[in-house]
Amino acid sequence: MTAMLTPRNCRWIDVPGAADARGRVNFLELGKGLAFQPKRLFWLHHIAAGQWRGRHGHRETELVLVPLSGACRIHLDDGSIKQTVALDDPARALHIGTWVWHELSDFAPDTAVLAIASTLYNEAEYLRDYEIFKREVGAHW
Amino acid sequence: MTAMLTPRNCRWIDVPGAADARGRVNFLELGKGLAFQPKRLFWLHHIAAGQWRGRHGHRETELVLVPLSGACRIHLDDGSIKQTVALDDPARALHIGTWVWHELSDFAPDTAVLAIASTLYNEAEYLRDYEIFKREVGAHW
Repeated sequence: MTAMLTPRNCRWIDVPGAADARGRVNFLELGKGLAFQPKRLFWLHHIAAGQWRGRHGHRETELVLVPLSGACRIHLDDGSIKQTVALDDPARALHIGTWVWHELSDFAPDTAVLAIASTLYNEAEYLRDYEIFKREVGAHW
Repeated sequence: MTAMLTPRNCRWIDVPGAADARGRVNFLELGKGLAFQPKRLFWLHHIAAGQWRGRHGHRETELVLVPLSGACRIHLDDGSIKQTVALDDPARALHIGTWVWHELSDFAPDTAVLAIASTLYNEAEYLRDYEIFKREVGAHW
């Protein structure tokens, strides 16, 4: 069940793919499901029970998150609208734009989440303090 | 245990990362573990028991494969040297260059393999016939 996304700068991507009796494959490339050129990839795995990841926003980075195995929940917050949705389908990716506070939690065992980022890593563009996020985000909507 | 790779154009990538009690993350970006700009991403998942994937080579595409969860085996063949190795560690990626016949098999349940490709999809650069691969590869070494 795909929830409508209400926070700004967040949208689902129905990832093209193929499925048959042998298995499934899904694919993204620039202009075919992916709105930006991937510059950086990272993957979360072996997350301990009860733990969270993320808990920040980005001034410059756009992300696409894909649960390649397992499932978790993600909390989205654009500074005024908040929503929590499941990441549980390798054929449904979540595009998170800039200025969205996000936090992942409730990781099922053996969950692996791929993150595709539009930028090279730059700590300066991370918003890790929620009060600063709240103050800065107001200027962007 | 990381096997030395003997087929030409194949190498392991020790993927940078961080691990703590909360979980693990690994990351690749251009020049930091990744030798090419990613143009296309795809992921294999829900592979049925006993099935294989791949079974082709590329005239133009370089690939990096990462088992984000689970494990499988991959058979590499540069036209003269063959080797079979395990893909079983999200922190150890396999870079497969051009002109390498590769086939994935022995997928454990819940295995998900990420493939990072250096090109947009172009069926014409796939080598899907082993005899043609053998004939063409001779001109490249």
